Amino acid sequence: MTCLDKFFETVDALEQHFIDRLSDLVSVPSVSCTASNRQDVFKVADLIYQMMISLGIDAEKRCPGTQVIDGQEIDLPPVLLGKYGCGSGKKTVLLYGNPASLSDGWRTDPWKLEYNEETDCMYGRGVTDDKGMEETGSLGLYEIIQEEADKYFADVDCICISDNYWLGTEKPCLSYGLRGIQPFTITVSGPPADLHSGIYGGITYEPMTDLIYLLSSLVKPNGAILVPGIMDKVDPLTSEEKALYEGISICIEDIERSLGSKTLVYDNIRCTLMHRWRYPSLSIHGIEGAYSSPGIKTVIPAKVSGKVSIRLVPNMDCNEVSTLVKKHLESVFATLGSKNVLTIQSDHGAKAWLSSVKHWNYQAATEAVKKVFGVTPDFTREGGSIPVVLTMESCLNKNVLLLPMGRGDDGPHSINEKLDRSNYIQGIKLFGAYLSELAVV
Amino acid sequence: MTCLDKFFETVDALEQHFIDRLSDLVSVPSVSCTASNRQDVFKVADLIYQMMISLGIDAEKRCPGTQVIDGQEIDLPPVLLGKYGCGSGKKTVLLYGNPASLSDGWRTDPWKLEYNEETDCMYGRGVTDDKGMEETGSLGLYEIIQEEADKYFADVDCICISDNYWLGTEKPCLSYGLRGIQPFTITVSGPPADLHSGIYGGITYEPMTDLIYLLSSLVKPNGAILVPGIMDKVDPLTSEEKALYEGISICIEDIERSLGSKTLVYDNIRCTLMHRWRYPSLSIHGIEGAYSSPGIKTVIPAKVSGKVSIRLVPNMDCNEVSTLVKKHLESVFATLGSKNVLTIQSDHGAKAWLSSVKHWNYQAATEAVKKVFGVTPDFTREGGSIPVVLTMESCLNKNVLLLPMGRGDDGPHSINEKLDRSNYIQGIKLFGAYLSELAVV
Repeated sequence: MTCLDKFFETVDALEQHFIDRLSDLVSVPSVSCTASNRQDVFKVADLIYQMMISLGIDAEKRCPGTQVIDGQEIDLPPVLLGKYGCGSGKKTVLLYGNPASLSDGWRTDPWKLEYNEETDCMYGRGVTDDKGMEETGSLGLYEIIQEEADKYFADVDCICISDNYWLGTEKPCLSYGLRGIQPFTITVSGPPADLHSGIYGGITYEPMTDLIYLLSSLVKPNGAILVPGIMDKVDPLTSEEKALYEGISICIEDIERSLGSKTLVYDNIRCTLMHRWRYPSLSIHGIEGAYSSPGIKTVIPAKVSGKVSIRLVPNMDCNEVSTLVKKHLESVFATLGSKNVLTIQSDHGAKAWLSSVKHWNYQAATEAVKKVFGVTPDFTREGGSIPVVLTMESCLNKNVLLLPMGRGDDGPHSINEKLDRSNYIQGIKLFGAYLSELAVV
Repeated sequence: MTCLDKFFETVDALEQHFIDRLSDLVSVPSVSCTASNRQDVFKVADLIYQMMISLGIDAEKRCPGTQVIDGQEIDLPPVLLGKYGCGSGKKTVLLYGNPASLSDGWRTDPWKLEYNEETDCMYGRGVTDDKGMEETGSLGLYEIIQEEADKYFADVDCICISDNYWLGTEKPCLSYGLRGIQPFTITVSGPPADLHSGIYGGITYEPMTDLIYLLSSLVKPNGAILVPGIMDKVDPLTSEEKALYEGISICIEDIERSLGSKTLVYDNIRCTLMHRWRYPSLSIHGIEGAYSSPGIKTVIPAKVSGKVSIRLVPNMDCNEVSTLVKKHLESVFATLGSKNVLTIQSDHGAKAWLSSVKHWNYQAATEAVKKVFGVTPDFTREGGSIPVVLTMESCLNKNVLLLPMGRGDDGPHSINEKLDRSNYIQGIKLFGAYLSELAVV
């Protein structure tokens, strides 16, 4: 029996202990976006801190300062740091875990871990993503990472972030890329107050008509971005990159199932994955300032703001993209002959992230997946953004690996969030195996 | 001294009495859209009823039934009917008055008539439009008009509705037309729930993108309606109609002042008035189901509904217009190749109204304006709708005249609603003179 086999046996033997530990964490309603739940966020941090100490981890809490929520100035949630083992000649890996948001409509109490025998799943807020500490901006975290880059984190050789999910429900994956995002607020304003459409309809330039026209100039219904120059930034598809898509174990029906409708643009799975992962997309999220309730109110809104975002891929710079969008919108607006005023605001963006799957960090994780699950993992990217990934990479200048634990149907951040019991237990084995492999790659 | 001169003298002598009467009415917060103010609506009705009785009018209250507001079933406001005089061989005129809504941001108490010496105006909710009984749908009123058409109203020869305003601030007007309205709710739905734009952006047909495209196909920024066939319905401009626009005493600057910005489409006043009164217009009021708050939420909305209305002109039928709009949108949607679902709902519409200024009802009013103000009135139309006008006309089948009392800058339904003292007193004289003229035309 190898050392790793012994470790696996121990994990199996401690299964109920691990489930109880997760249960204890889930039972605390640590919602970080309301002032009234802030004490619960501290309680979760304390629980994890105590667990770290009892495991022999050299743990400490850092307080990043204060913030104002619901009109109160309150302490930010703490950042937990911990060191375990420091044998010379061995690699140092930085592990990062994050967690949890709340939604309504649960079948069970989201603050009580419910194990369902039939599905073999555990339900509860944060079970899969992620009873820890990010997701609502992580105020203060970035400053600590920056400050400690050449102090606390000076010896880090690679980074492993436990986030994201398997692509489907059966095969583990390692994630090596994320899209970035650049949001825009496009505002057209005319008169100082909303107008009666009976009195002014037909004789004034209506800001809403202008805005609708501008928004329609950004993207085609099939998703093609119409802003000149945007697609020029996209990296060409190499045969090497193409090969990574070949063996991926997911089909169109899986994506349709998770979508809940048959409204996909492409009927080819590789094309679909590429448009989620390696091509930019532009979505129109909504309009502020216009009527948005049920029924109808026949008013001409005086000032309307379209909310738009572009998902960025590697090689697309936030500022460059902003400049292209502004230039395009301004030139379209000039053709309208409108007397209204257009302003375009680029909100805070994040660039895309792309790691190298050839790095020893990924090799170690690949071997670990093989040892625990008996298969070579899928290499995946994700269409969304995880800002902390970029921060870690740029501040510490080390390879980052996303090592998912949950399945594609876990419903993170959503109602009835779940984690399969087997994913939890095999996931614990995976992390152990990964650390073990890191020592030998 | 003529009989009319004596009447004018009496009105002047009773000025303070009339102002006190208006003051008594304004002091009751008769907001008909909340259950808690319903007793105040009854109180105003009682006050007017007592005034009618004390003037020798044969008055009665009709109770149209009940309605549910704020979860309570309550009595609808009463309809007051009254007869005064019934000399054989004389014409019978049906006079109709309506009133009042509430807004925030007043400089004075809206429920207290405030006379301002400097402006010579009286301020208070309902002073100009109109301490009476319409404006929020007038539930039950239409049924009573229909039921009583050949009973209580059997002898009516013409109708005078005291609504609308002077075009500007100096010259009285008679109104002979209103635009109608046909609202639409255009819904595009895709997946069963909102989507993460990182995960689904670029691979699904987004309902919002489809809707924006559909909305942009309806109207140009300069207000030109793009729905094929709509403009074919518009009556051609005759030289006779054109002549009515020649003498109208308003200029572009007046309209810009009331608009509060220089965002008019036309720099020609007649063109502007025609596009307000005799041409249709299409406004996009808003979108339901998409993000509409400050900031940004990078979600792909699953189901979005555009709220649109077309202001109708004479000869445009609600059903025909609905058919044209649906046909157009469905054909545009078909070109998108989207897999989402489009549904178009035509909400309750109202057709346009156009009276004949040559009718003796208008002649009598014209003579009355000359006697009181010494000028020939402007003949105006309005861009909005007043549903009761159509009901009266179609149920009783008699000529309807809109006889305005207030000025174009009164701010009806808005904050700081006012009525010039002189308009009130001269207006009372105008109604007396109109009745007197009716007897001789």
